[in-house]
Amino acid sequence: MPLVRIDLPATTPANQVASISDIVHQAMVTTFNVPADDRFQTITRRADDELVCTPQFLDVPHSRQVVFVQIICAPGRSLEMKRALYAAIAREVAAATDIGINDIIINLVETARENWSFGQGLAHYAPVDPKI
Amino acid sequence: MPLVRIDLPATTPANQVASISDIVHQAMVTTFNVPADDRFQTITRRADDELVCTPQFLDVPHSRQVVFVQIICAPGRSLEMKRALYAAIAREVAAATDIGINDIIINLVETARENWSFGQGLAHYAPVDPKI
Amino acid sequence: MPLVRIDLPATTPANQVASISDIVHQAMVTTFNVPADDRFQTITRRADDELVCTPQFLDVPHSRQVVFVQIICAPGRSLEMKRALYAAIAREVAAATDIGINDIIINLVETARENWSFGQGLAHYAPVDPKI
Repeated sequence: MPLVRIDLPATTPANQVASISDIVHQAMVTTFNVPADDRFQTITRRADDELVCTPQFLDVPHSRQVVFVQIICAPGRSLEMKRALYAAIAREVAAATDIGINDIIINLVETARENWSFGQGLAHYAPVDPKI
Repeated sequence: MPLVRIDLPATTPANQVASISDIVHQAMVTTFNVPADDRFQTITRRADDELVCTPQFLDVPHSRQVVFVQIICAPGRSLEMKRALYAAIAREVAAATDIGINDIIINLVETARENWSFGQGLAHYAPVDPKI
Repeated sequence: MPLVRIDLPATTPANQVASISDIVHQAMVTTFNVPADDRFQTITRRADDELVCTPQFLDVPHSRQVVFVQIICAPGRSLEMKRALYAAIAREVAAATDIGINDIIINLVETARENWSFGQGLAHYAPVDPKI
């Protein structure tokens, strides 16, 4: 179900863009109970002045090489699952790319299960209508 | 009130982009109680590796020609209205363009009516402040 | 905490893009209780047919030079604070740029405090887990 929006510098090499895309998806599969074939992402390469990040916030310093990951998903995951998701994305992106672990910014936007259609104009996750 | 974000392949012909924009708006007018002059959309043409879609999910196969439609709107529409909206968008985009009915992915994000300003710095939909 | 997404015409001069970015941030600091070093923004320059705006809605006329400001933030600000935020952004962008006060469209999407990670894979704003 999640729709993932990834924003990153236009200078990021294509193979690292692909790695980030894969890692974010795999982290959701591993920690967030997302099916392996439930993958919907937009990726936006941005010029330097189109990706604005504070140099430091909450004692975390940031470089110009930041990645923003926004995940629009169903509500109901536990705080424990959210912690595991953030940790997996940050750890694995930092291990596989030139992006530092400080530079992976994540936010979740939760929206109801009936708010999704995965094609054919159907509300796949809505409760069945008893009148039908 | 809705803000609509449409993501589609950069290869989509301009007249089909315009059709999708019109159809999504008209479907909201017809099924979702949106005024005809309430139209605010962003459209993003994406390179092949910036629009990532599973080849199949929930028995719906997807091609590379997918369209993601995200609608940020006020809460409170019924499930019946949401079903009608999804059906109208998918049916009519598939009829008017080269996009297949399987390839129209839709999600709604609902946000409070006081969370909108349509210009002039006013909260147009907020309740009137009794102190004013 | 907020993530701000600004969409504007590709024809906007670079110094005005920078002013809008600064003004939106400063308005959040002044009216919305956002720390000065809490700044995360994406800015998207858009072609004419990728930024679609009604010519008039709710008695507010719009030109082609519109700016959409979407702020994803924690819940809980009062309506009074929201009114002050909208007023400050619109007034100050109109004063500093060629954008008119009618053409600044704002919406807020509120998401839980535990839904954010500002680097290092941590849930910075989540309640402390009593088991740890």
